[in-house]
Amino acid sequence: MLLWAAVAVQAQEALWSGAEVASPVVGKDGTVEFNYVSQGAERVLVCGDFLPEIEVALPDGGKQKIRAAEMKKGDKGVWSYKTEPLKPELYSYTYMVDGERLLDPANIYVCRDVASLTNIFIVSLAPGDKGSLYSDNAVPRGNVSKVWYDSPTMKMQRRMSIYTPPGYEEGGRYPVLYLLHGAGGDEEAWLTLGRASRILDNLIAAGKAVPMIVVMPNGNITSKAAPGEWEAGMYAPSFDESLNFKIKPAATMDEGFKDIVAYVDGHYRTIKADSARAVCGLSMGGGHSFAIANRYPGDFDYIGLFSAGLRLDVPNDFSGYYECISANDSLKGRLAEVFDNVRLYWIGIGKDDFLYDQNAGLRRFLNDKGYRYEYVETDGGHIWRNWRVYLTQFVQLLF
Amino acid sequence: MLLWAAVAVQAQEALWSGAEVASPVVGKDGTVEFNYVSQGAERVLVCGDFLPEIEVALPDGGKQKIRAAEMKKGDKGVWSYKTEPLKPELYSYTYMVDGERLLDPANIYVCRDVASLTNIFIVSLAPGDKGSLYSDNAVPRGNVSKVWYDSPTMKMQRRMSIYTPPGYEEGGRYPVLYLLHGAGGDEEAWLTLGRASRILDNLIAAGKAVPMIVVMPNGNITSKAAPGEWEAGMYAPSFDESLNFKIKPAATMDEGFKDIVAYVDGHYRTIKADSARAVCGLSMGGGHSFAIANRYPGDFDYIGLFSAGLRLDVPNDFSGYYECISANDSLKGRLAEVFDNVRLYWIGIGKDDFLYDQNAGLRRFLNDKGYRYEYVETDGGHIWRNWRVYLTQFVQLLF
Repeated sequence: MLLWAAVAVQAQEALWSGAEVASPVVGKDGTVEFNYVSQGAERVLVCGDFLPEIEVALPDGGKQKIRAAEMKKGDKGVWSYKTEPLKPELYSYTYMVDGERLLDPANIYVCRDVASLTNIFIVSLAPGDKGSLYSDNAVPRGNVSKVWYDSPTMKMQRRMSIYTPPGYEEGGRYPVLYLLHGAGGDEEAWLTLGRASRILDNLIAAGKAVPMIVVMPNGNITSKAAPGEWEAGMYAPSFDESLNFKIKPAATMDEGFKDIVAYVDGHYRTIKADSARAVCGLSMGGGHSFAIANRYPGDFDYIGLFSAGLRLDVPNDFSGYYECISANDSLKGRLAEVFDNVRLYWIGIGKDDFLYDQNAGLRRFLNDKGYRYEYVETDGGHIWRNWRVYLTQFVQLLF
Repeated sequence: MLLWAAVAVQAQEALWSGAEVASPVVGKDGTVEFNYVSQGAERVLVCGDFLPEIEVALPDGGKQKIRAAEMKKGDKGVWSYKTEPLKPELYSYTYMVDGERLLDPANIYVCRDVASLTNIFIVSLAPGDKGSLYSDNAVPRGNVSKVWYDSPTMKMQRRMSIYTPPGYEEGGRYPVLYLLHGAGGDEEAWLTLGRASRILDNLIAAGKAVPMIVVMPNGNITSKAAPGEWEAGMYAPSFDESLNFKIKPAATMDEGFKDIVAYVDGHYRTIKADSARAVCGLSMGGGHSFAIANRYPGDFDYIGLFSAGLRLDVPNDFSGYYECISANDSLKGRLAEVFDNVRLYWIGIGKDDFLYDQNAGLRRFLNDKGYRYEYVETDGGHIWRNWRVYLTQFVQLLF
């Protein structure tokens, strides 16, 4: 024991001010207590969208309203705050200590959203609730692989994440959901903030979704992979990576998508049929799903648009908006062919989403044409909280 | 463009004080500039073992020497510090702002070491140098999977990381390196701070290592997986997870290891031969490798002990220290059988490692018996910088 006590002491020193406290402490009633150790700090806030709005002073003398709560200093320099009971959900937060934003040193669980890291925690009050659905449970678990594939169309090697369901290793053939991220995201996004592998594990275990392969490609057509995973190195990610219209890629996401399907059908035990293929995505990925459906009408029997950003390819040209997927008029009119073949065309969006009007326009167009789709409208805006819900609902309707 | 400009603005707001500056900026000469924005801070340090030792005041009035540098405040609240040219290497750092430790908000690249997160960056000055070896380069890339396997011996499902080399998808059979983490680590450790997949990709591309499968199991026998990846939830990791001798597991790591090999041989296209099987590990994982070699003499033709912590199973019983792997005397004397069969028995350790004496004892024992091994002694202590070097050297000697 002496031997290993020495290791522990070395590690403890490396922790600096962390880890003397537990934080966050999620109570069985849904309350959450945050603890932070600082002798010298004068003001400590915990910040997150689950907290009430308060006013903070800006360095330039102005004021700003943020969702946050004052932490109170107690014994031994421990600052604490305990919330009201929170609903089951995955939550993000950070601290603000004397005006400096920082992560909770006692909480190693962080997610990246575009260019910033935040701490996360999950509130779950009962089996089967939203928090439980996003959590790791004692159920059979799928495997997740990071796979490099060749895209002759995009003229590069590209990276994607692939979830195979529990039981896949034992044999059989499986349907495939292609699950696309939004602008600023990448092939990691649905697995981290999206909790896709947990949602699938839990729904499959509950018999609410059929075992399926889930393919999460990188949808940034001027990148090969997530930041820090390819030869561009450790750059600072930004929306530009997804939406830099100045760089001319070899092809659009929908044009290159056939290479992804070919790789997956060639390397995994898939059911190679339209009826066993779904595509859905959030924001930019919703636009990609829309375009992919139009480019390959009939190849995907299930289409899902989550807070979709439509018409990505030609942002300044809104003529023929809903009917074609690019300035190339030869693809005009494909939507009729899509709706001749599709089993499910699913549209979800939040009431406060800045893309609400654009999706309302699409729905009016589909209504006028008599095309049948399912529509889910939720509270809230352009946020992961909604996208996790849409994924949960959508996968239960598949295959 | 207007549409997406709105997304960018939303994101910008979410970044708080981050991202207005680039940090760290690694120069072509190896200098590294750190930038941090704060109007209100009074003292900002950058902390890392590549910096000179300075004295800082503790909240209790005492003083402590740490490796750090003072950042200077310039225009617009930007604090900066530029290093001397650094040698090619992967480096870790954090900031200390008015006594509070925090991560660089402009740098999303963080690694976890047991219970704390630090920022990382890489200095590379020329192709093929150490920094380049740890980086993502434009070379064929292997795939990495997180795999759940059944361990009847450990009586649980357990998680491991598996690297398959470039070309694996096209067919053929491959040798296998089993690569084990240390106390406080898990199946993620060799991929993050260890940079194992990059080291393999780069050495294979350079023709310095043969294409091989690398299996990185979880070596904490009372856990199923890394923190946050199994039903124990988002707990704070500690060395206790690896070294909690109060919990009686179903079996030792070496006893359960046969289930890992059986899974890998059953699910991957391996060369099923002693000559195509290697096992190595760092610290506790070095102890595991020692024990695995002894428990299955002849099954692994290549053994690597990196800063090995030996005699893990019975920390209070040092009788027959080097000859047996547990209190079970029936295994005594296995070392002779190991050395009858092994092609390479490799021991690496740093001069300042707290396990130096223990490994010197093992070497004296092996020398006395006339067992042949290779020995590499480096500068430095019980640190990742050494383990990455040992992995680099070891894999070039395999198969």
